[in-house]
Amino acid sequence: MSKYAVGVDVGGTTVKLALVSESGEIFKQTSVPTLGDQPPEVTVNQIRDAVEEFKNGLSPKDSIIGIGIGVPGVVDLDGGTVSYPPNLKGWGVVRLGDHVKKATGFETKVENDANVAAFGEGIFGSGTEQESFVMITLGTGVGGGIVINRKIYRGVFGGAGEIGHISIQQDGPICACGNQGCIEVFIGQQHIVDFAHSLLPMFPDSPLARIGQERRLEVKDLSIYANKNDQLSIHVFERVGKLLGVALTSVLHILDIRTFIIGGGVAGAGDFIFKPAEDHIKSHALTSMRPSVKLIPADLGNNAGILGAAAMVFKG
Amino acid sequence: MSKYAVGVDVGGTTVKLALVSESGEIFKQTSVPTLGDQPPEVTVNQIRDAVEEFKNGLSPKDSIIGIGIGVPGVVDLDGGTVSYPPNLKGWGVVRLGDHVKKATGFETKVENDANVAAFGEGIFGSGTEQESFVMITLGTGVGGGIVINRKIYRGVFGGAGEIGHISIQQDGPICACGNQGCIEVFIGQQHIVDFAHSLLPMFPDSPLARIGQERRLEVKDLSIYANKNDQLSIHVFERVGKLLGVALTSVLHILDIRTFIIGGGVAGAGDFIFKPAEDHIKSHALTSMRPSVKLIPADLGNNAGILGAAAMVFKG
Repeated sequence: MSKYAVGVDVGGTTVKLALVSESGEIFKQTSVPTLGDQPPEVTVNQIRDAVEEFKNGLSPKDSIIGIGIGVPGVVDLDGGTVSYPPNLKGWGVVRLGDHVKKATGFETKVENDANVAAFGEGIFGSGTEQESFVMITLGTGVGGGIVINRKIYRGVFGGAGEIGHISIQQDGPICACGNQGCIEVFIGQQHIVDFAHSLLPMFPDSPLARIGQERRLEVKDLSIYANKNDQLSIHVFERVGKLLGVALTSVLHILDIRTFIIGGGVAGAGDFIFKPAEDHIKSHALTSMRPSVKLIPADLGNNAGILGAAAMVFKG
Repeated sequence: MSKYAVGVDVGGTTVKLALVSESGEIFKQTSVPTLGDQPPEVTVNQIRDAVEEFKNGLSPKDSIIGIGIGVPGVVDLDGGTVSYPPNLKGWGVVRLGDHVKKATGFETKVENDANVAAFGEGIFGSGTEQESFVMITLGTGVGGGIVINRKIYRGVFGGAGEIGHISIQQDGPICACGNQGCIEVFIGQQHIVDFAHSLLPMFPDSPLARIGQERRLEVKDLSIYANKNDQLSIHVFERVGKLLGVALTSVLHILDIRTFIIGGGVAGAGDFIFKPAEDHIKSHALTSMRPSVKLIPADLGNNAGILGAAAMVFKG
């Protein structure tokens, strides 16, 4: 007899669902479009249908022991309440956990998606040997999740870990959040591309100079050409790494957690970002706090959400 | 029969010691010069002598149940080990807790002084109704201590809470710590005075313009004249408050702790600093995290060290 959890990752465009074993294997996986403009019942029903399908596919000896859901927004653990998730305009304040439990009959845990991804890395990914770490997801935005002694650190009201909205430049550009000089304004995906485009005239010999005239560059382009020793790409990532290092130095000074797990699409650039980030921390942090600092690439990739959500069921 | 604790505050120039009751009353108090250039045994002996004197003054019914010590530096809880405190050059790595216990016979707890001050505010000061808060001490430097669920949050290696070394300006001035643009570089006491002096030519009618030509200003001068509606002083404190708000917004985003207790000499300026700091947080933090944010003045003043150290004995 095996126990399974259903991990659900409610993204801005897709709801991903998976049937996950206790050891973190994905046995079945499906996805449906996120209908965030519609009332939350629509999403609850999508989840119910998928869970039903997973259940029907199980042998009679096996069982689902619960559902974990990651959502983009602040979550109150009471009833798994999601409040005004910015990318799910039709939702308002929703007791998602209660609704899904009622619709499916399974215990349901709901958490902020960045926290879920961090928890997943701790249970199934590159954080299994780390009691405490900070996870940073580099993508469209810059997300964060804090794990202390193997538990998600949520703060007093559940909003902790918003690493992307640390201001590293008090007089810097305005962030979408309204704050000024947030790290996200410098190293969010589109800002990286903007920065690369702004440098094209200074690197006329870079292959990206030609590509950048034909179409908008992507971070992926920079990764590819950095690996071919393109100085423009390397320069852009060096700046991304350095600025990430500024923010992480502040995180280190506040939390004294020295392991940083870095995931998300932009982290695909690997050491081109990791190295300057780690160099910056180790040359700028308080001397006593420099030892043991390390940056580790995340391990779960696009499955961080579903695996982390399932991990909450098994170990949350 | 009453129980007492000895609270010890090892400062850069003075070691303060007090006999403190369980309710936080100071029954006896003494101080000796800090002989930080000499080996730590000298300080241990000073503590031993003062404790002996306190003990001899007690009635036979009363007893001392332990000693708490706050020191300026990173403390490892194992043996109360202090490592290379910057202001105690003669110390190196010292198992201060073990030494004081051996010399006095009393259980001894040792903690970083900023953590001690925060803990003291939580037990005896303005934090008694707060489960979780961040304490910031505005003085020569900018210190910090984090209390989560009534316990000091130390981080993985004991260095957490270094609020003063959050960088708010990645290309800003170099801090004494080696980092760039630390909040301390902008609002440490001497930096505030420097800023005030730099503004004197722009405020020729300010009474401080004359005083500032005769001698170096002090933050106290600014406090006095701010209360007399001096625009220079008010302007300086507004900037201090705003920049403090930038750093605290980042702390809020990381920790989701919304109560900030502000102490230290510079905090004597009160609302001239608190108001712009709170305004900045409430206009720049993530919308969902703005409610409940509050800044509270610390309550224990110069006794925060000895009372916090004693509190560790009673409640630590």
